[in-house]
Amino acid sequence: MKTKTLILILILLHPLAILHAEQHPGLFLTPKGVKEIKSSLGKYPTFDKSVDELKKIADEALKSDIIVPIPKDGGGGYTHEKHKNNYYEMSAAGTLYQITGRTQYAQFVRDMLMKYAQMYPTLGLHPAVKSDTPGKIFWQALNDAVWLVHTANAYDCVYNFINEKDRSYIEKNLFYPMAEFISNGNSKNYAVFNKMHNHGTWATAAVGMIGYVMGNKELVDRALYGSNKDGKTGFIRQLDVLFSPDGYYTEGPYYQRYAIWPFMTFAQVIQNKQPELNIFSYRDSILLKAVNTLVQCAYNGEIFFLNDALTKTYKTQEIVYAVDIAYKNDPANTSLLDIARQQESFVVSDAGLAAAKALKKNKIKPFTYHSLLLRDGQNGDEGGIAILRAGEPDKQTCLTFKATSHGLSHGHYDKLSIVLYDNGNNILPDYGAVRFLNIEPKNAGHYTKENYSWGMQTIAHNTVTVDETSHFDANMKVSSTYHSDIQYSNLTNSDFQIVSGVENNAYKGVQLQRTTALIKNEDFEFPFTIDIFRVNSDSVHSLDFPFYYRGQMVSTSLDYQKYTTELKALGTKNGYQHLWLEATAKTDKSNTSFTWVNGNRFYSIATISNTNSQFMMTRIGAGDPDFNLRYEPCFMIRQPNVKKHTFVSIIEPHGLYDLSKEVTVNYQTSIAKIELLKDDHEFTVVRIQTKTNKSFLMITVNSNFGDNKVHSTIIDSKNISFKGNYYFKKYMK
Amino acid sequence: MKTKTLILILILLHPLAILHAEQHPGLFLTPKGVKEIKSSLGKYPTFDKSVDELKKIADEALKSDIIVPIPKDGGGGYTHEKHKNNYYEMSAAGTLYQITGRTQYAQFVRDMLMKYAQMYPTLGLHPAVKSDTPGKIFWQALNDAVWLVHTANAYDCVYNFINEKDRSYIEKNLFYPMAEFISNGNSKNYAVFNKMHNHGTWATAAVGMIGYVMGNKELVDRALYGSNKDGKTGFIRQLDVLFSPDGYYTEGPYYQRYAIWPFMTFAQVIQNKQPELNIFSYRDSILLKAVNTLVQCAYNGEIFFLNDALTKTYKTQEIVYAVDIAYKNDPANTSLLDIARQQESFVVSDAGLAAAKALKKNKIKPFTYHSLLLRDGQNGDEGGIAILRAGEPDKQTCLTFKATSHGLSHGHYDKLSIVLYDNGNNILPDYGAVRFLNIEPKNAGHYTKENYSWGMQTIAHNTVTVDETSHFDANMKVSSTYHSDIQYSNLTNSDFQIVSGVENNAYKGVQLQRTTALIKNEDFEFPFTIDIFRVNSDSVHSLDFPFYYRGQMVSTSLDYQKYTTELKALGTKNGYQHLWLEATAKTDKSNTSFTWVNGNRFYSIATISNTNSQFMMTRIGAGDPDFNLRYEPCFMIRQPNVKKHTFVSIIEPHGLYDLSKEVTVNYQTSIAKIELLKDDHEFTVVRIQTKTNKSFLMITVNSNFGDNKVHSTIIDSKNISFKGNYYFKKYMK
Repeated sequence: MKTKTLILILILLHPLAILHAEQHPGLFLTPKGVKEIKSSLGKYPTFDKSVDELKKIADEALKSDIIVPIPKDGGGGYTHEKHKNNYYEMSAAGTLYQITGRTQYAQFVRDMLMKYAQMYPTLGLHPAVKSDTPGKIFWQALNDAVWLVHTANAYDCVYNFINEKDRSYIEKNLFYPMAEFISNGNSKNYAVFNKMHNHGTWATAAVGMIGYVMGNKELVDRALYGSNKDGKTGFIRQLDVLFSPDGYYTEGPYYQRYAIWPFMTFAQVIQNKQPELNIFSYRDSILLKAVNTLVQCAYNGEIFFLNDALTKTYKTQEIVYAVDIAYKNDPANTSLLDIARQQESFVVSDAGLAAAKALKKNKIKPFTYHSLLLRDGQNGDEGGIAILRAGEPDKQTCLTFKATSHGLSHGHYDKLSIVLYDNGNNILPDYGAVRFLNIEPKNAGHYTKENYSWGMQTIAHNTVTVDETSHFDANMKVSSTYHSDIQYSNLTNSDFQIVSGVENNAYKGVQLQRTTALIKNEDFEFPFTIDIFRVNSDSVHSLDFPFYYRGQMVSTSLDYQKYTTELKALGTKNGYQHLWLEATAKTDKSNTSFTWVNGNRFYSIATISNTNSQFMMTRIGAGDPDFNLRYEPCFMIRQPNVKKHTFVSIIEPHGLYDLSKEVTVNYQTSIAKIELLKDDHEFTVVRIQTKTNKSFLMITVNSNFGDNKVHSTIIDSKNISFKGNYYFKKYMK
Repeated sequence: MKTKTLILILILLHPLAILHAEQHPGLFLTPKGVKEIKSSLGKYPTFDKSVDELKKIADEALKSDIIVPIPKDGGGGYTHEKHKNNYYEMSAAGTLYQITGRTQYAQFVRDMLMKYAQMYPTLGLHPAVKSDTPGKIFWQALNDAVWLVHTANAYDCVYNFINEKDRSYIEKNLFYPMAEFISNGNSKNYAVFNKMHNHGTWATAAVGMIGYVMGNKELVDRALYGSNKDGKTGFIRQLDVLFSPDGYYTEGPYYQRYAIWPFMTFAQVIQNKQPELNIFSYRDSILLKAVNTLVQCAYNGEIFFLNDALTKTYKTQEIVYAVDIAYKNDPANTSLLDIARQQESFVVSDAGLAAAKALKKNKIKPFTYHSLLLRDGQNGDEGGIAILRAGEPDKQTCLTFKATSHGLSHGHYDKLSIVLYDNGNNILPDYGAVRFLNIEPKNAGHYTKENYSWGMQTIAHNTVTVDETSHFDANMKVSSTYHSDIQYSNLTNSDFQIVSGVENNAYKGVQLQRTTALIKNEDFEFPFTIDIFRVNSDSVHSLDFPFYYRGQMVSTSLDYQKYTTELKALGTKNGYQHLWLEATAKTDKSNTSFTWVNGNRFYSIATISNTNSQFMMTRIGAGDPDFNLRYEPCFMIRQPNVKKHTFVSIIEPHGLYDLSKEVTVNYQTSIAKIELLKDDHEFTVVRIQTKTNKSFLMITVNSNFGDNKVHSTIIDSKNISFKGNYYFKKYMK
């Protein structure tokens, strides 16, 4: 079908869409926006800087030969990086053509597109295979889609510059076949295009965007409503399915960051092209919610490490896109400008300029991190993640508590795991993914095999492993059919925040129940954590409970034996093969403490112990033939031969270690004693005594939950009665 | 002798000194300075902030009970930290009394001094023993001296406030006996007071300062000219002996930082009290030189890790003192203001105000790091440290080359070792000291035993260990009688900087000769290093040459075997007991490469190898029963059974790893081949070929050095003739 004919059909069928469909540029930039940007240059230094960055890329490109190599290499390799560079260059040059009117930029885009159009029909599937959906320009169809998203923008910007003959050549040889390949090139690509998954989002965004530029309603509708155009798949359906009602993306924050890019990008295009769809209001403004949720899933601007994750900050381009576009479509949310300020860059588009202008006008509402419960699952009924925060912004204590569904192929077997940040540092980290993205010698930039043998396994996380076996025996299919549940939570009292989760299916016949509270109290220097982990079974098991910590070990109440001339791996499978056993200890004391230093603060874990408890200090790094792991330390409690056991621990930041001023204060835990006074199906009752002789009583209910239910129990011959799911009080004997 | 009588004698004997001797305050603050500070409040925000910090300390102190505990604990323990806190509080309160006139501050100082004066006569030696010079208030006489330096300032500030009776009581019971104890309390203290060592500097500064406040010429002269007042010891003599003519302090930069505090502090006091001594001009302005040298011994404001060293930046209070006082006494050196700006704090004193005022007036000359050769030894003839720098300020490549004398008790056995920084990161680090300063559970804050068994040993450093034995068999007495030598250096051509050092005595019958060049060249992305390490002997030896690296291993040309289920320590002594052997490799190739990533850049070592070469990947952490070590990795070359061997290596930063933009460029070394074309007593000739087919020839002379000597040698049948000690050129066949 010829473009002209198509446009004609569009005009007849879709009167509202026409106005916008014919306009170029019309994806990220509009003629009005271009005019505004031109008249704004020199007024908004950070926006100017972003323009300059594009200019640097485009000017560099203009100086070089246009090279469009035959696809050959995987991620990190030459042809991969070259094609990636090419789309950045085209997008930059196209945008600059609009802003400056310099025809050289447009010629560059046209000439490169012509080269791609010459090559594309000759291409078979990419020779490097990454997944079962190979691309043509890249090793994965996913990367082809990303290429097309950027290139659609470039083409949109120079559309009116290119003569009709060349346009026709490019569309016929490159864009149509590519859109066809991505959406329907083979059964795998078809499946991905119609899948509820971030790869599907990239695919629909790519096809939809090039469809809009070419004025091809068929492609646009395919993108919006799925291959069958029945709305059962496609971009709009993804909005229904891929986010929970709280805007949480089931794969976790790292992939939420990645997915948000095509979501917000394509949504902005839809908003420009079919404003009547009110895409940003769709499903109670789910996309705007998702952006807010994403920026909340961070500590000091660094996205949480949950499931497969690498280090990513607010400054990544995808979050710049997300924030600028979210602000443009929700200008009342001025706290987004505070993020834009931290990002120190803008998308060079209508949305970016809107954010830059507003920021200049000092319309900022300071962005603040909140404590949040983010429900998982399309309907919000598949568990969730709790984020508990306390203390001053920069030095905030932040604890995440994970009780979600599996999280698709990037999920980890880490039910009820916690991560702790404090004072600007990651104190009890999650390992994240074992991957060296785009580093070719590291398994071609893929996830390494240790991602599966280590990163995903339960023992790699701050939660309980039963019988040295991962949750659901590390079977994703099984794990994906279940989810943990949040039993109760209360995050509204900033002095006492609590969340309680349960996992009934990770091990047959074993119930895991964890209740974690973050407490600000005048008798403690900093917010501290009470952590109660109950394991219940009718049969005998061995429990391993690791605390991965960052920093230098300082002291412990244990009389441990460390291996100094020889180390052995702790096990042979399920992640244990990746731990060196560095030291072991037993104790006859009812309490055990372990202290380390990180930054200028000390941290202690004080935990209830008994003569049956075994303690291990381990270090990641065994079973690592290719130097793929980070060799980080761990303090681990093993409780063998138990049917029921409850770990009760206090995780406490304390003191000051100022090496610059050579000042040390409070290097010891302030906890004198932790006692488990009661632990049954109704209640767990814990008493804490500090070294300054303050006592605290904490009770969590273990069943019969309800904010308005009244409970009572007898402690030390005294009746204690309380309403709701928990009780915490300074204790008087 | 009563104070009044003494002053009378002083008046008679020392007419010039009188004027100043009677003035209070007169140490750091002068009446003129106080007046100026008062009228400046509110004008210099950073200075105000420093005043506020003192105010916070002092006001907090005023609210609390005055507690002067009986000395009991070591560093990090309660009484230690309390007494330290007390002197900070007194100094702050004294200073604020001068600035605000509030008598509560003065009362506080007086009352605390009275308590000290009551306690001091009852004290024996401190019960916790650190060194053979125990203190009374602290575990070391050193700390007592530091206490007195601060307290002398406090006393000076409130001198006129305290009535004569109380002054007399305080001086008689506290200051006189303390000054006496520090300078002459026992034979050890006497020896330290008269020793050419930083402990002696603190001791003389303390005694001299309290002497000035009390108007006691005896104490002052003792401090300035030694116990015998003959100038053979004492503060002035220290200026002759403890710094090299280049202002380098033989213990190394970390201790230069510590020593500079009493040096500059006391010098400022002397300048105020006896300006006729022109102390800052003494010995060609050695103190001002020493401050400049100190700030040059840093990378991005972090003091070099050489010998015993922990992390210290420009922001430490001692460097704030040094910079403010240096500027006050050398106002032409406005680049110091750039350091003051980075420090973001000032001493609340005449000097601090002078710096703050000048900084406000924008008199800054940007501080720049230079390449430098710092000679060691009183006469500058005991080897030295070369600092080679290239590239943009923040991302500068910086290589240190150590060929000094031993460096007293804090010296390491690391002749000809190098350290490399690049792109803001420490790439090839020096381990520094094994110590947790002021952390009581870590060997009471002392150096741990691993400082001796690991930190000081040769194998812990980026230099060659012969026969698995440390230099001088780790015997400090022997090591201290020798020093390495700089054979030649040229740091003036920013495109090609070179230094060559030799060590003839570390091993009997073995000569170590290292020549290292830092090169900026258009065929390389970043400055790179050529490193030629020659070992010469008539007998057979085994050589170990480690490269400690920071970052994640990426790739190597070696087919290595890594231990995955069991690790063993590499050895049993001389530091080898602290290395886990992680992997081994052999090769039949003439070149070997090893690549890692740190920050957003890749690094490769390319090195000449042969079938006799053994390669080991090791990790620090064995033999560490108390978790005192950092578990860092190392790439090590072993050349067994050689009489003569020359290691030739290229250390090359390359590429870009931008995880935020997901861009990877040039992850492989650009070196294709390194050849050793000639290696004899006259010349070492190296040819380097890049993967882009560029060739370079480098020659270093190994004897017959001289900038004007002409050498010639035949390479590839061509005669190459050159003047000076080296030759480097793009090579044409």
